[in-house]
Amino acid sequence: MSKRLDINNSGGTYPVLIEHGLRFRIEEEIRRVCPDATTIFLLADEKAAAHHLDDVMSSFSAAPHVILIPQGESSKSFDELERVLTELLEHGADRKSVVAALGGGVTGDLAGFAAAVLLRGVSFVQIPTTLLAHDSSVGGKTGINHQAGKNLIGSFYAPNAVLYDPAMLATLPEREWRSGFAEVIKHSLISRAGLLEWLYAHVQDPSDLQEDALEELLYRSIQVKADIVQEDEFEAGVRAYLNFGHTLGHAVEAEAGYGGWTHGEAVALGMLAAMHLSRMKLEADVPLEKVEQLLKSHGFQTSLPRSFNHEKLLKRMMHDKKTEGGNLRFVLLKELGEPELVPVDPEMVERAMKEVTADD
Amino acid sequence: MSKRLDINNSGGTYPVLIEHGLRFRIEEEIRRVCPDATTIFLLADEKAAAHHLDDVMSSFSAAPHVILIPQGESSKSFDELERVLTELLEHGADRKSVVAALGGGVTGDLAGFAAAVLLRGVSFVQIPTTLLAHDSSVGGKTGINHQAGKNLIGSFYAPNAVLYDPAMLATLPEREWRSGFAEVIKHSLISRAGLLEWLYAHVQDPSDLQEDALEELLYRSIQVKADIVQEDEFEAGVRAYLNFGHTLGHAVEAEAGYGGWTHGEAVALGMLAAMHLSRMKLEADVPLEKVEQLLKSHGFQTSLPRSFNHEKLLKRMMHDKKTEGGNLRFVLLKELGEPELVPVDPEMVERAMKEVTADD
Repeated sequence: MSKRLDINNSGGTYPVLIEHGLRFRIEEEIRRVCPDATTIFLLADEKAAAHHLDDVMSSFSAAPHVILIPQGESSKSFDELERVLTELLEHGADRKSVVAALGGGVTGDLAGFAAAVLLRGVSFVQIPTTLLAHDSSVGGKTGINHQAGKNLIGSFYAPNAVLYDPAMLATLPEREWRSGFAEVIKHSLISRAGLLEWLYAHVQDPSDLQEDALEELLYRSIQVKADIVQEDEFEAGVRAYLNFGHTLGHAVEAEAGYGGWTHGEAVALGMLAAMHLSRMKLEADVPLEKVEQLLKSHGFQTSLPRSFNHEKLLKRMMHDKKTEGGNLRFVLLKELGEPELVPVDPEMVERAMKEVTADD
Repeated sequence: MSKRLDINNSGGTYPVLIEHGLRFRIEEEIRRVCPDATTIFLLADEKAAAHHLDDVMSSFSAAPHVILIPQGESSKSFDELERVLTELLEHGADRKSVVAALGGGVTGDLAGFAAAVLLRGVSFVQIPTTLLAHDSSVGGKTGINHQAGKNLIGSFYAPNAVLYDPAMLATLPEREWRSGFAEVIKHSLISRAGLLEWLYAHVQDPSDLQEDALEELLYRSIQVKADIVQEDEFEAGVRAYLNFGHTLGHAVEAEAGYGGWTHGEAVALGMLAAMHLSRMKLEADVPLEKVEQLLKSHGFQTSLPRSFNHEKLLKRMMHDKKTEGGNLRFVLLKELGEPELVPVDPEMVERAMKEVTADD
């Protein structure tokens, strides 16, 4: 089986290919979307490289220059961006070069941003190796972190292709599976595409995600995201819905120190807080307990340790990109599949944080 | 008198207003193009600020936060970009903030790039204070330099408006007038709009550029640029013609150390070399001696000092953005007003460099 989505954006259309074994055909697929490519550069996450670089390299007639990216959010930094750009330039990058990212969200975000600003933009191909990257690799968001918050510096820069070989996900540790699964749950909550029901029916735990079921999950979850980013490429409207769970999530992730909590672990907690807020603010009928149970059975932490300082979290949330004129805004659910962007008072956010804080 | 051009780009249309006294109406004009602006930030070149900041600030009902940018190309650096972004974020920038650049090309390029990557893009307004900025402020090129060459890192990011008060040019030192004038001459050579004839007739020396004549010059020169960037926003084709004189120009500027030669001084020399190449390579009929005379009468240096190492210049030119697959390409003239992008052998470039090198 293999699956394909075509995603429209202001610059054209790019394919997302999902196929077991695709890693052995990388050069062919890159040259199909970038027929006038000069040099191809492979920016590879160190850990992904350890598992998959040999396979990917075997697809090339001439070995591309490889730049290894250290694991973890700390690579989404100014220093790392500068190092990567310097290495690209010193190895002869020109305007028809292609930057390909082999790795998860960190590598994709960093490499995509480097591609966006190198010579004011070169071609860019995503080769995701994590479940989380099914989300980050589609939609054209690239960027790095800033001490003031996550993803505060970056570009909208669509890839020329996303080449997804689900077989590479087999080497993922459980914690990273979980991190990606949080975004799948998010997609299931903000859309009416029936994904939540499909999950209950087919995915009791990560071991269910093999071969065709995994391709199906990736396809369905990416489809939710694709529908939204096609409607709103530059996040002027509905795209903000993808931020469901991320307002508190980003703050928890930052406050824990990048890498302390995975992105998905923090977002899972943020989704629970956002569902509490949906009840408080909109008196919404949301499947909070059901989702909490699903998260627990997939090994997620569903309460915030008391060590987190709520005032500091709130201060970080004020730097959230949805904040406007100093007013906090959250994506809440009017009901399952019906997200809405809502201004929320800091006092109510404080109450929601208490709701998700551990009792002791 | 006042003049207005409307420039189309993929994101819409932005106005270029040219008007004596416009500096006293900055806030009004910014709010006209950015009606939902939250905070406005003014990134001001230190020297421009010394002359004009009080006037510009007097146009605001509430003083915008000002970030001073040190003079000179060294501000187009990673470090300065990071400093500016940090200051913007620490002073509450959000997605509806406006970054306005008061200054010349350096400030505009740096501020525009900061606006492009801050929260993946905020509104941006150019308030040029130099003649050179008539060129750099239009067309959406933003960026910083890299040790490997000028403008190698950046974005295409169109401003929301260009607000040009020619009265601010009165404080420019002669050397900076000259630097900007080189781009006017460039526009006159690559277009058939009659600008070269107009210059011969109306602009014997900088003292001729007052009031209406200055507005007319800005309008005509910007019109040439606007016609080209509207045809080719992302430099896939004819926009490369704007690089006439810049291949050697950038190399000379970099090799002299940024700030040693002004951009325009280096470009003037680059245009002479490009006209020699046009004769050598295309047997073109170009007004080389006439332009050399015009440059001399405006105080330009028309020969390259022998201290420049041609091999080093050539190596720098290999990093030029027009280089593809290791092949140097120059914008040459088939005749006056007829530019063309042409691959040129390094040996011929070497001969052209000798042609423009001082005898002793």
